[in-house]
Amino acid sequence: MTYCLAINLDEGLVLTSDSRTNAGIDQVSVYSKMTRCETHADRSLVLMSAGNLATTQFVIEQLNRDIREGQPHNLNTLSYMSDTADYVGEILSSRIRRYSDNEASGFAPEATLLLAGQIQGGPPQAFMIYPQGNHITTSRETPYLQIGESKYGKPVLDRFIRPETSLLDAATCSLISMDSTMQSNVSVGPPIEVLIYKKDSYDLSYHQRFEAEHPYLVELRRAWGQRLREAFAEMPRFGQQQ
Amino acid sequence: MTYCLAINLDEGLVLTSDSRTNAGIDQVSVYSKMTRCETHADRSLVLMSAGNLATTQFVIEQLNRDIREGQPHNLNTLSYMSDTADYVGEILSSRIRRYSDNEASGFAPEATLLLAGQIQGGPPQAFMIYPQGNHITTSRETPYLQIGESKYGKPVLDRFIRPETSLLDAATCSLISMDSTMQSNVSVGPPIEVLIYKKDSYDLSYHQRFEAEHPYLVELRRAWGQRLREAFAEMPRFGQQQ
Repeated sequence: MTYCLAINLDEGLVLTSDSRTNAGIDQVSVYSKMTRCETHADRSLVLMSAGNLATTQFVIEQLNRDIREGQPHNLNTLSYMSDTADYVGEILSSRIRRYSDNEASGFAPEATLLLAGQIQGGPPQAFMIYPQGNHITTSRETPYLQIGESKYGKPVLDRFIRPETSLLDAATCSLISMDSTMQSNVSVGPPIEVLIYKKDSYDLSYHQRFEAEHPYLVELRRAWGQRLREAFAEMPRFGQQQ
Repeated sequence: MTYCLAINLDEGLVLTSDSRTNAGIDQVSVYSKMTRCETHADRSLVLMSAGNLATTQFVIEQLNRDIREGQPHNLNTLSYMSDTADYVGEILSSRIRRYSDNEASGFAPEATLLLAGQIQGGPPQAFMIYPQGNHITTSRETPYLQIGESKYGKPVLDRFIRPETSLLDAATCSLISMDSTMQSNVSVGPPIEVLIYKKDSYDLSYHQRFEAEHPYLVELRRAWGQRLREAFAEMPRFGQQQ
């Protein structure tokens, strides 16, 4: 399983992903699910992926080839984020179709992607690209997108993420969301990657990788658990109402 | 959708259920999903259900008929909770099989049940009965069972529910778990029912029903949200580590 998250804020983007991949519960490996695309300086693009690893590796390889071969449509030539999402979605869905005849056996070639970034002339944006190739973006009411194991970590995002939330607050919240997910689903696991993209910076270098025992992750987990226990102890007790 | 929860504690049982039923998103109704079975005084049995309403209504009707007709196997004659779960599971799975030929059309007759209670001579127990008729019970490490939309409300249970948790603390926690689920999934909705069963009491009368605007539910929601916001504001901030 996987958990990836893209948050689109007034100040920019916060992207967070886990790194556990499994083919059955007895075959677990570590793969980064966050790819910073190597593009021209007028754009910054990041892809995150959930689902079939062969499919997502193919998509990334194909995107790089299209740049290298100077194809008319590639990550450097498109002028809009939504056109870029269309283009990535086409590569994704055609690759999935190629294998979909085998699905009766339980094999699933599907994958879902998050594309986030900014192209000069437009705002920072994030898109969730479905296996069928179509996509959705964020709104002011729902400023984030999740792929993979999304439910355990969603309540904390709904409580704290607003468009005006600061980049560092959102990054903190994304780690709490990721940690709640890892506690409940062993197939989501470290290292955790966090990338903070400041609007109009065209700079993807603020990227941090947290191993399970990274001091900040340990301290955040401890402090959050502690404060939740205190909060619960102070709740009005059932049966004492009225 | 549905969310039902059975917690098995040293002091007894806490059972919580929502009441929203839907056949498609445009056909939503209110049905209680918690049935207190009318049995002899040497036992207390409660059923909760998630899934196809026709199936669960049939199961409850059949259980009542078997008592009325004095069938050799009925809720009053079995001596063990696990045998009772077997018996209920058989009724459930045979009813589902009857309709399973139609599944190609997208119709799903499946249902999952929670059976909780106590039969004299044994401890209070809870069972999750699968559509196939088999079942699992709780353990000291996992003292609760969930059916329906279980993920949003699970992290809070994992944090606070232990076998030695008091009945009233667990009931409070179950309402927080239910409220988190309702915030994230509109197909889980009030009224919320909570039943507290004290070990060896054979009394199912401590049952409470909360409408959406019940003052205790409103206050609990407000207080929990408030304390979480305070907790989040105090978390060590991303980027200030080291």
